Amino acid sequence: MIGIFDSGIGGLTVVKEVLRQLPNYQIVYFGDTARTPYGSKSPETVTKYALQDAQFLIDQGAQIIIVACHTASAVAAEELKKRLAVPIFEVVSPAIRKALAVTTKKRLGIIGTSATIASGIYQRRLKEADRELELITQACPLFVPLVEERWVKKPETKMIARRYLYPLKLKQIDTLVLACTHYPLMREIIQQKIGQRVKLVDPAAEVVQEVGQYLKQHPELEQKLTRGQEHKFYVSDITDKTRQSAKDWLERPVRLEKHLLE
Amino acid sequence: MIGIFDSGIGGLTVVKEVLRQLPNYQIVYFGDTARTPYGSKSPETVTKYALQDAQFLIDQGAQIIIVACHTASAVAAEELKKRLAVPIFEVVSPAIRKALAVTTKKRLGIIGTSATIASGIYQRRLKEADRELELITQACPLFVPLVEERWVKKPETKMIARRYLYPLKLKQIDTLVLACTHYPLMREIIQQKIGQRVKLVDPAAEVVQEVGQYLKQHPELEQKLTRGQEHKFYVSDITDKTRQSAKDWLERPVRLEKHLLE
Repeated sequence: MIGIFDSGIGGLTVVKEVLRQLPNYQIVYFGDTARTPYGSKSPETVTKYALQDAQFLIDQGAQIIIVACHTASAVAAEELKKRLAVPIFEVVSPAIRKALAVTTKKRLGIIGTSATIASGIYQRRLKEADRELELITQACPLFVPLVEERWVKKPETKMIARRYLYPLKLKQIDTLVLACTHYPLMREIIQQKIGQRVKLVDPAAEVVQEVGQYLKQHPELEQKLTRGQEHKFYVSDITDKTRQSAKDWLERPVRLEKHLLE
Repeated sequence: MIGIFDSGIGGLTVVKEVLRQLPNYQIVYFGDTARTPYGSKSPETVTKYALQDAQFLIDQGAQIIIVACHTASAVAAEELKKRLAVPIFEVVSPAIRKALAVTTKKRLGIIGTSATIASGIYQRRLKEADRELELITQACPLFVPLVEERWVKKPETKMIARRYLYPLKLKQIDTLVLACTHYPLMREIIQQKIGQRVKLVDPAAEVVQEVGQYLKQHPELEQKLTRGQEHKFYVSDITDKTRQSAKDWLERPVRLEKHLLE
């Protein structure tokens, strides 16, 4: 089984990509809705939660794990790789590779939660890859609640997007990394405010492509990987809103099961 | 000691009222910043967290407890009263009493988190008190992130406040209950958008007044209550933003100590 976890149900954007790119394998998902969001919390707390999330997926039979949450990818992926026996994929590395591949003017923007941006991981790893890059980062903490409130098409959202993105537009970035699971859900408005010529990098698509390549290179794992369409979706808390958003974002019916960690 | 807990540091608005109205007693505070917010989570999860929060305060020496969090007050107060041996004060009852006392036209508005509004507790209890009341409720899930982002004075916040409050203004309410710890921090903009003639009820002020009256009526408890200015502030997660907001909202320096529950 392919295990995928996130701080909430935003990681269903990664599930959608797995269903599109790797449709044969069985998926087990965990969304930590009882402790969401991770983006405003400290690295120690996020690492602790991420280890519990990943261990739960392994207990359910996950043979590889995708960390859909950018905050957890940014601050906890190394610890997960050290401590767990299954291959761990995180969203930061493939997003970085893609951004480096598509930028032409070497002017990159990165938007994410406060914790992801404060972690400095994108800045550090992009600079390591190419010292000439010009990077502009911006935390956009209101994007997640706006998406969750279903206000994506409202004028307030457009104003807020303009306020967050204006400094990046001024610097004439040519590529923008959407470093949060929720941001692809407001892709249109981001594209509109940053300008049509700026290329958007969606890490969900990239990480799943990376997993596909890894499976090609590791046929022994690929052959063992459970097939099937009986995907399992666990969350640590359920409300009507969670159910509705899960269905909307995955664009198909989904049965959520509650499982409390701790 | 007076114990006060909240899902995060918004409950410091209640601490401020205790310092103002009951300045002699020692305070112990707990903010569950590792699992904040409660407002979007299910009643079962909020009740579980609230019981852990209150028990922690009792373990630290709390002799009475104020539930500063409206969501926890709305969904978990009865359970806390049943299970714990110290007097429990919650913010809903005093807010209701105050609202009933100040309304003249019996047209009341209530704004809060999704969980508080969905709990229906204000609607139910106000109707029990006076069947002729006309109630208009509105969940305002973006207010908390706007306050936490320090965007209170920004035009986007004014637009969002107008969108949320317009239906209440149309119904010509004469009294508005601010049923979330964060809302007093944007009181000015709420007053401006709902209209200057509408009376705002701040439950933080009301619950502390209720505690003061209770202590007058229970001198045996009042005499045992620990005095002192060495207040203790615990949170389950600390970031720079938490520290900064705590200082700003309390309007004095504050030393936060980390304590993880579970």
